[in-house]
Order: sequence, then structure tokens, then C-alpha cells
Amino acid sequence: MLVVMNKNAAPADIEAVMGAIERKGYTARPIPGGERVAICVLHNEGPVDAAYLAALPGVKEAIPVTRPYKLVSREAQASDTVIEVGGVLIGNGHFTIMAGPCAVESEQQALTIAGMVKKAGAQIFRGGAFKPRTSPYAFQGLGEEGLRILAKVRAETGMPVVTEAIDHEVVDLVEEYADIIQIGARSMQNFSLLRRAGKAKKPVLLKRGMAATIDELLMAAEYIMEGGNDRVILCERGVRTFAHHSRNTLDISAIPVVRKETHLPIIVDPSHAAGRRDQVIPLSRAAVAVGCHGLMVEVHHAPETALSDGPQSLYPAQFDDLCRQIGPIFDVYKTSINGCTEAARKTL
Amino acid sequence: MLVVMNKNAAPADIEAVMGAIERKGYTARPIPGGERVAICVLHNEGPVDAAYLAALPGVKEAIPVTRPYKLVSREAQASDTVIEVGGVLIGNGHFTIMAGPCAVESEQQALTIAGMVKKAGAQIFRGGAFKPRTSPYAFQGLGEEGLRILAKVRAETGMPVVTEAIDHEVVDLVEEYADIIQIGARSMQNFSLLRRAGKAKKPVLLKRGMAATIDELLMAAEYIMEGGNDRVILCERGVRTFAHHSRNTLDISAIPVVRKETHLPIIVDPSHAAGRRDQVIPLSRAAVAVGCHGLMVEVHHAPETALSDGPQSLYPAQFDDLCRQIGPIFDVYKTSINGCTEAARKTL
Amino acid sequence: MLVVMNKNAAPADIEAVMGAIERKGYTARPIPGGERVAICVLHNEGPVDAAYLAALPGVKEAIPVTRPYKLVSREAQASDTVIEVGGVLIGNGHFTIMAGPCAVESEQQALTIAGMVKKAGAQIFRGGAFKPRTSPYAFQGLGEEGLRILAKVRAETGMPVVTEAIDHEVVDLVEEYADIIQIGARSMQNFSLLRRAGKAKKPVLLKRGMAATIDELLMAAEYIMEGGNDRVILCERGVRTFAHHSRNTLDISAIPVVRKETHLPIIVDPSHAAGRRDQVIPLSRAAVAVGCHGLMVEVHHAPETALSDGPQSLYPAQFDDLCRQIGPIFDVYKTSINGCTEAARKTL
Amino acid sequence: MLVVMNKNAAPADIEAVMGAIERKGYTARPIPGGERVAICVLHNEGPVDAAYLAALPGVKEAIPVTRPYKLVSREAQASDTVIEVGGVLIGNGHFTIMAGPCAVESEQQALTIAGMVKKAGAQIFRGGAFKPRTSPYAFQGLGEEGLRILAKVRAETGMPVVTEAIDHEVVDLVEEYADIIQIGARSMQNFSLLRRAGKAKKPVLLKRGMAATIDELLMAAEYIMEGGNDRVILCERGVRTFAHHSRNTLDISAIPVVRKETHLPIIVDPSHAAGRRDQVIPLSRAAVAVGCHGLMVEVHHAPETALSDGPQSLYPAQFDDLCRQIGPIFDVYKTSINGCTEAARKTL
Repeated sequence: MLVVMNKNAAPADIEAVMGAIERKGYTARPIPGGERVAICVLHNEGPVDAAYLAALPGVKEAIPVTRPYKLVSREAQASDTVIEVGGVLIGNGHFTIMAGPCAVESEQQALTIAGMVKKAGAQIFRGGAFKPRTSPYAFQGLGEEGLRILAKVRAETGMPVVTEAIDHEVVDLVEEYADIIQIGARSMQNFSLLRRAGKAKKPVLLKRGMAATIDELLMAAEYIMEGGNDRVILCERGVRTFAHHSRNTLDISAIPVVRKETHLPIIVDPSHAAGRRDQVIPLSRAAVAVGCHGLMVEVHHAPETALSDGPQSLYPAQFDDLCRQIGPIFDVYKTSINGCTEAARKTL
Repeated sequence: MLVVMNKNAAPADIEAVMGAIERKGYTARPIPGGERVAICVLHNEGPVDAAYLAALPGVKEAIPVTRPYKLVSREAQASDTVIEVGGVLIGNGHFTIMAGPCAVESEQQALTIAGMVKKAGAQIFRGGAFKPRTSPYAFQGLGEEGLRILAKVRAETGMPVVTEAIDHEVVDLVEEYADIIQIGARSMQNFSLLRRAGKAKKPVLLKRGMAATIDELLMAAEYIMEGGNDRVILCERGVRTFAHHSRNTLDISAIPVVRKETHLPIIVDPSHAAGRRDQVIPLSRAAVAVGCHGLMVEVHHAPETALSDGPQSLYPAQFDDLCRQIGPIFDVYKTSINGCTEAARKTL
Repeated sequence: MLVVMNKNAAPADIEAVMGAIERKGYTARPIPGGERVAICVLHNEGPVDAAYLAALPGVKEAIPVTRPYKLVSREAQASDTVIEVGGVLIGNGHFTIMAGPCAVESEQQALTIAGMVKKAGAQIFRGGAFKPRTSPYAFQGLGEEGLRILAKVRAETGMPVVTEAIDHEVVDLVEEYADIIQIGARSMQNFSLLRRAGKAKKPVLLKRGMAATIDELLMAAEYIMEGGNDRVILCERGVRTFAHHSRNTLDISAIPVVRKETHLPIIVDPSHAAGRRDQVIPLSRAAVAVGCHGLMVEVHHAPETALSDGPQSLYPAQFDDLCRQIGPIFDVYKTSINGCTEAARKTL
Repeated sequence: MLVVMNKNAAPADIEAVMGAIERKGYTARPIPGGERVAICVLHNEGPVDAAYLAALPGVKEAIPVTRPYKLVSREAQASDTVIEVGGVLIGNGHFTIMAGPCAVESEQQALTIAGMVKKAGAQIFRGGAFKPRTSPYAFQGLGEEGLRILAKVRAETGMPVVTEAIDHEVVDLVEEYADIIQIGARSMQNFSLLRRAGKAKKPVLLKRGMAATIDELLMAAEYIMEGGNDRVILCERGVRTFAHHSRNTLDISAIPVVRKETHLPIIVDPSHAAGRRDQVIPLSRAAVAVGCHGLMVEVHHAPETALSDGPQSLYPAQFDDLCRQIGPIFDVYKTSINGCTEAARKTL
């Protein structure tokens, strides 16, 4: 923390700030500049509350220096985390495709789609059993019946399954049936859900909130790791901006930034970013090329009858196409980073 | 819903779109224009899924027409809802001030602040017992002990109390102790929490999420009303934008828009919008003048020692000042709308 | 500037950063912390380029400390600037209402509206002669004929006039005819226009760009002041955000922030912020209450036939109403700050 | 345009809206729905002003239907525009790399960098002679001397050159010396500059404003095409959002949307989007994979001494690397779309 004083701050103001810092148990070190004084805060263990110091008389600004997260940071663990789920590896040189319908609608629907996406190249099956919906009048998912169908899909296809736990109440069920517990964008700061996920015995797929900063995403992951679960997969799915030609704006630059800051794998959900089918394949290509560790894509064998998210769901033939296109891009990506040092690789 | 076709859409495409609409049970009515055809969707009971129709061949755009919310809308109830809590009225011509610390820290702290804010003019006491915090390492609130302190504040001061229920688990407790159940910005789309709030016997204070549209805020309120609880107070507390001179950007225009769309009362939280003490009083004045039904303000007798949100908490003398300033503004506001018709009053 | 090094930065990296700072002619002062080193940059006259230092090996962050603007800052001039235009005072305790149509359409139209707004309380007449339009097919203004009409309005009503100079070419003309030269939101960073305005003999009304930070607004004003023109009036007119219930989001918190940072007056344009008539009066009330120095409002005697911005133009009777409502609010505002110190007044 | 009436709109309101539409010379066609009436506006030649109709009594919403641009749209020209500049082709299956320093600093600097980027694979040289700078105290470019240096670079390397015309005054000079006239993000709605560019005999590179919608970008291009210059190259360079881990948020989804709406080529500027060197290569890979027509990249042989944008300028070895990485991605991209129909190709 650096506290910058006004040019005309009185000596008493400077004293008072230094006193306030030391009363918190930190060390205050003044730095006389040409025009004004700044005061460094040292020996703080956790983050210092900038706003508190900023509000003292004579203070121009209080500037945080330390990152607030610990366990998720590359400073805590330099090498990439690799997560294994039912034989599938996620992270560090592996590229993992998760695909399936927005919502599980019936056993037949799920098995039909699962067969198609597996054949095209998906390694993990996705499908919602509990659906968070903006409207109370919209289809809310099949609930536990949906989870049973997912278990059947795994039994028949061998693919691990991922599904969302929309709240604390359903985590037990989801943990029992699924291979990966998804925490959705709207729940990224549902802290009791995050704490519960920290106790889970399954990996967690944590989606970035639609207005969350990278720091907030990593702090949410920190909640899970702090609870004891170090198998966290991050997911960029677009953020809300003034632009409305896509439902959300896919923040592609988040991938290199996250890879630099944390050892955790990060995948991309192009379907929710786009909100419309015709952007999903281009965004998927971009996501692979930028360097993410995988994709989560919505696919439906008959999107026009889908109970949710039909318009952004790919037709199976389009998903085939997507897999065909991204394979060579990932190969090019991997080749291009061969021979790089580990340090360089982090941001490639 | 209006479906706009491409200029060069084939007759077969138009047929297909009309078929798709009718298969959903709606009526499709084509409108031949000069250059292109548009198709109206009629007789839908709920909202029509725009994205699904938008994705059909030959379709340029699908434009929703009906608002998705019902019970909260002025079309469902024309006159303002007034909510009574422990003798305090909220809504329609009343102006209600809620004030107190961010977090309840001790009985002495709560009683000290309560006494001060009551004397200055606050009618309802606020204070967090369960705190949602970005970092797992930050102070998380006193929990049930905090609720007991709030009950004591009510007993000693006569002020009703409002406190946040951060998740489904703690709603029972909060419902038992508090007079108003607060749902925070991060929980605005925690749908199981909203459903539970819909069953609560206490009024609910629902804060707008930091990237929520007005429609989404109203749909969240719809969840609560649909569950049977029609005592919902909305709260604007700033949205996340590119601007960083305040922690959030107080969206002052939301107030007249919300008042036009819904009969529910709406208050403003200037403390979280600003994120810093020196903007709280100006924002409060603006909020009163724009026409909200109340304020929720953070006040602390010793902000520099506060366990959370110290920098945005007013000193008691500042809160006095705030109350003194807004009183006459509210009087001016009320006078200025006297003699208006009910219709005009809604947007004043 | 504070340069924060990585925890594991090599001594050679630290040396290199210090060398880079000193080669720029500044002083580098290292601050060894518990976990990492930070380096202060001292004795820089202007701002230091943060990004350059941020990109050196071993650097975690480079944090700017000094504000980049000088002449506009309160540190350069503590007391409020007051600008006199044709007998009307703008700034520091005065409240100035500018009103008129979006575009000057004809002499009769301009005179009709001018008479109405003057009677209601406007002191300065606004009207566009050169209109910046998103579409090349839209009405572009009457040009010099419009300026002649404005001069006639001044002659007949005694009101000074303000009109936009949309580019460098028309500044000479606007400077000749108008009393205040307006620079529009789209031109806020048209630097040759700003430089030309710095040489103008008339005051300049500078509107904030729709995605401009406060720093950028103040830097644009700095261009004008640096050119020799110290009569600059700032104008908040809403920023572009994800919210779409108003055309722009009026950033009401910008007012106290700007008043704290600069001595220049700042007014609010509620018409362009709202983009729709029914929000203009509530936003105007909020703007007065928050503490701005004036309003610029679009009024048309027949908005339904206006050649531009009809939907956000008030009817004359509404403008009457607006003036009646804001007068008492400004009185309350002024009274509430009486007895304050000069320092306190800056943020009231 | 579709005008949606309130549920309880009076017949007189409906009459009035229809009258207003017909007075503008359009046809009004009412569509009685189950709950409310909507009115279609037909036979309008240009766009209809939604806000005007929205503001009439009894109107709930006025929804635009027609796109406001004409010449730039795919409906006006189905096949991709290809622009030839000094033997280099831009658009439709070609991939064009523009590279060079942010600013031309000296003949030696320009020639040094030009030699390096040409060798690596760049086809067009970029370099600023006139620089738009946020601060009046920052380096503003060499002016005409910079243009002469660019001409020399072309003479010695054979590469066409692109440089920015920051205002109307310098367009003549830029048109004389350069091969492509760049209009920067801050000037995207400098309409007199756009009109002048419409008369230019050189192609125009038009950058998206940092808060511009796709519609506004295309309308700016429409200004140029309407003036008679149909050689317009669009450029996505990031938009301003709440996210601050990169200087701007590269809106990668803009590429497929723009390619669907218009026949004009679109390139990506990863340097200004990122604002920092370490994101430039990942963003470049994403841009190629998503399907843009080229890149514009800042390269400097000694970024640490660059007079502007040093931190986002690649070292020459990094630019080599960038070219090596994107070549195979573009090959994969082209191969993946072979065999597609022209219609499908537009969104690939």
C-alpha cells in the first residue's frame, strides 16, 4: 500500500496517517518526494484497506500493491495444475472439450446428444439438471431426475459429466452424481456455495461472473482452495458491456492474464458469450488460438425444440465442424510454443 | 414478438417461420412491407423466445415486445405499494431513512450508532450479521450473535431492523430476528434465495445486482411476488461501468424508470455506490431529488476502526448533516408534485 | 510512480528497473518490503509512463501517483473559477440554466422557443447550427444561417447564445457569432479543435465524451487552458454503459469528483443523458441537488415536428415546471452549505 | 418500426400515433394483439426516429426494424470487397499484416524497423506522423517530416505505408504522402473528417471508437462511402469496459458480426486493445482464428526508448514469433472453410 498525500498536506496530517497505519500493526515509511510526501505501508500480512486510509485528511490516494489472493497465485505454485477426471486430463498442454445440451430434457435426448458429441470429439458431457432462469415462469430443469440421466450417460458412453449446482441445497446431490460440479456465473460470489465447494470431493468448474474482474474470479477460486479443494477449473464466458451484437462480450484477453496470474486451468464457454449460434464456431477458434485449456459448448440435436438456450445451441453437424476446425489450431498452438521456456509458456 | 425477415428471404423461409410460430401454439401474422416481410407473433401467454426465431433461415431479427414480468408491473397494479414495518411506512409519498454500520461488531457499537442515527432522523436500523466478502480471509460477520444484537437494538430504540440473508441457510434465522430481510447485490439472481424470500413473512429489501438490467431486477422481484410475498422494496446501489472515480456508478435514471414500470417502492444506497465517504452526501441529495422512496446509508461512530466498509461510512456528524440537507429537498420534491395527476406523479 | 517488483525478482531485475528510471532523468528510491521490493520514482516533472516500466522483467506493476493535469487542478488554483458571459455568471454559487432546441430550424422557431425559455427562467440560449449526426442522411443543421439566427435571438432577447463547433473549420464562424463555443461529446478528444479553442476569445463549453474518464475530461480542458483560454465550462452528459433504459447513464458522482479536482465550473445536460423526455425533469432535480453549476436542457415548442432530438426535448410547459422545481432545490442546496468552510464547500 | 401501445392505451392515443406516423409520409398499419395494439410503420425510405414515437401518450415502446446503413451493407453488395494497395490485397481470403512503430521518430528508426518487419512478413508499414495524445504535454509526432520519412520507407522497402490523419487540416498532406489514410478511434465520429475521407483518392483505414457500437462503426463507414470512396478497411481495436487487466477489451465477436453485415474487410489492432506487450501475440492468434482479414501491430526495435506506446510495442524478435505463429493458423482457417458455400463463408 502506498499512501499519497496532497501537495499541501500539513505535517500533522502526515503524522496522523502514519499513526493510523502503525495502529493497525503495520510499518509506515514516509518517502519525501519533490512536491509531496508518500507513505509506504510495510509488514502487512493480508491486504490493507485502501479506502480507509484514502479517507483520512490530507490524503490524495491510497494505492494497493499486493494481490489479495494467495493459494491460486503462480507465486504460490509456479507450475500448471493438471486435473484428472475419469481419465480425462485438464490443463497444461491438454485440450478438453465439454459439450452437450443446455438442459437435460429426457434420457433419450441426453443419450442422443451424448452419442453425437462423443463421436465428434467431446471428452466430457455437459447438461443442466438444475437451471438458473431469469424468469420464475421458465423451465427450471428436471432436478434429481436429470442427475440420474447424467449418470446413465456416463455409464453408457464412458464420458465424465459436468452439471451445475445452483445453490448450497443441491450440492450434495450434484456431488453424488456428477464428476465435475459447475458453479455458474450468477453464483460466482455465492460465498456459502463456494465454501461448500471447497469441501467437495469433486473438481469444480467456476464460471466468471458477468461483471467480475479477474481479481474477483481468482478470489472466488481462493474460497474453494482455502476450503481444501484444489481442483478448480476456471471458465471465461463473456462479460456484460455496452455492446449488444452478442449477448456478452467474450473477454479473450482474460485467458493470457489468468494464465499468468494462476496455475489453475481456464476454459472458454463460447455459447453463453455469443448467445447466438452463428458466432459460436468463430469464438471457439479464437479461444483455442489464444491459449485456453478447453471449451464448453452447447449442442442440441434439435435446437428449435430445446427447452432452453436453443438459439445458441449448435446442431450436431456444426459441432463436428467445430471439432474439425479447432484440432489443427490447437496443434499449431502447441507446436508454436515448443522450445519455449516454462516462463514464456505461461503467457503463450 | 416481431420477426423481421431478410430482404431476399425466400417464400419457403417465411412459411417455415410461420410454421414454427404456430407449432408453439401462437398466431403468426405476416406484415408485407415495402422491402421486406415482418411477422407478428400473437396470442402468446408468456414471453416468446426471441433467439430461437432469430436463428431460423431468412430471419434478420426477432424483436421482443411484451415485458416478461407481470405481478410487479404497473399494468398489474396501478397504485403505489406502501409497506408498513413496525409502524414505519415505505413508499408512495413517505421517505424512509435506514442507517447503521456496515457490520454489527458488538452490542456496544450497535447501540451507540443506533442512538446516534435515530437522533439524527433514521427510522430503520441497518447492520450486517452475515457479510458477503470478496476475500475468504476478511471478517465475515458475527452471525446469529449479530442478529441477537439487532433484536436488542430494536428493543431499546424502537427502530425496526434490516439485515442481509446471504444465503438460503440463514434466511430462517434472519426471518426470525429481523424486520426486513435484505437480499444483497451479489444474490439478486440467487433464485433459490429469491424463492425462499417469496415464502417469508417479512418484507424483503432487494438490491440491484451490479450488472443487472432493470428488467432483471424486476424479474428477481417477480420471483419473490410469485412466491406469495408482495412486500418487496427495491434498492439501486450503483452499477459497474468503466468509470472508476466512484466504486460503482449510481444509476440515478433507474429511479424514474422503475417508478414508471412498477408499483413497488425503490430506495437508494449511496454508500455502496460511492465507495468513499466524500461522495455520500451529494449522492444522497441527488437520490432524494430524483424521487426515490428512501435511503440506506452506512454510518459508523469510528469509521477508522470499522471491521468493514469504514471508508464509505459517514461519521455521525456527517449523517446529521445529511439528514438536515435532505429534509428540505424532500419537502420541495413533495410540494412540486402536489396538484399533479396520479399518472404524472409516477414519473416525478 | 511506484514500481512493484515480483516476489522472486532477481537483484539484476531490480538494478535494471532502477537504471531505466534514472536514464529518464528521475530518481529511483527502492523500498524493501517484507516479501518484495518496490521502487519509488521521484523528481519527475511530468507524468511517468507506467506501461513502459510495467513491461520490464521482474516488474509486477507500475502505479502512477501524480495526476497528469496541471492548470485545471485545484492544486494550481484553489478557488472556484467564475465565468462571465454577457452579464450571466457561471460557477461558484451561481446556477445557470441554458435551454433551447437541439437544432436551430428557422428564425421563427428559434425566437418562439427563446421567448418561452427566457420567460421560464433560462439565462442562456442553446441551439445547434452545425449538427454532428450518426447518419450521413440525417439533417445536418442550417450552418452559418443558423448562426445568424442565434445572433438575432441574442439581439431580441438579450440572452447570450451557445452553439457547437463540430470541427476546426467552423470555429472561426462560431467564435464570431456565439457567446460560448460548445465542443461536443464526440469531439472531446479532437485535439486540433481543443488547441484552436485554446486560442479562442470566447468561453468554451466542453462536454464529456461518452466513454471518457474524469482524467481524460480534465486533460481535454488542460489542452484548452494550456492554449491560453482559461474560461472552460465542463459538462456531464451521461456515459455509455450496459444499461439501456436511458440513452446514456448520467454519472452523477462525476460532479462532486470534478468539483474536488478542478476549479472549473461543471454543468449537466440531462437531455442527452436521458434520451427521452420523461426522465429529463427527475435528472435535472438530481443534478441540482448533487451540486452542479447549471443545466443545459433541450426544449422545443413542437417536439413532434423537431428535425432532431424531438423525443428528448421538453415541451415549454414542462420546462416551466422544471424551472419551478429546481429553484427551491438550489436554494436548499445553497443554504445547506452556508457556514461551511471553503474546503468543505468544494465537495458539497 | 413497430410501435407498441400500452395495454390500457385509449383509442384516441392510438389514433394520434397513427396520425403522427402518416404526417411523416409513412403508412401506419395497426396490429390488434390479444392484450395490446401494436402499429407497424411502413414505406419509410430512411430510418424512422424511434424516440419521437416512443414519447407519444399511450406508447410503451417504439422498436426500429431497418438497419440505418445502406452502401456498406451486404444487402447492397453480397460479395466481399477486396482492396488493392501498392500490389497488396486486403479482404476476401487474403491476410494482410501491417506493422511498424507507434510514431515515426527519425528516418533511421523508421528504416530500421521497416527492414525488420518486412523480413518477418509484414506487407504494409505503419507509423504515426501526427499523434493524438491525451496530454498536451506529450510528444505529438514529427508532422510533415514524418510523412517524408514514410515516403522514404516506401521507396526503400517497396512497402505501402499507412498513417493517421488526425484532423481535416492534415488530410491533404496525408493523402499526398501515404497509401492508406488512417482515421483513429477518437475520430470515428469526426464527421467532417469522414466526409473529407469520402473524397480522398486513397483507401481509408477506419478504427472503431472505444465505445462505438457496430452500427455506429458501419454508419461512419457509410459517411465515407456516401462521399464516393468505396475503399474502406474497418479495424477493431478494443472497447472500453469495466475490465482493466487490458487497456481495452478486444471485442472478438465483432469480427463475425461485421463480416455478416458488411462486404468491407476488417482487421484487428491487438496492440491498442492490449496496451501491454505480453498480450499482443495471444490476441493476434485469436484474431486470425476468428476470421479477420489482417492485423495492425506496433513494433519497435527499442521499445524502452520509444517516444510513445513503448510498453505495447513488440520487440522485433517477438514480431518474428507472431508471424511464425499466425501463418499456420491462417492456413488452417482457410482450409477449414474450403468447400463452404459463399453464404457460409461470410460468417466463418
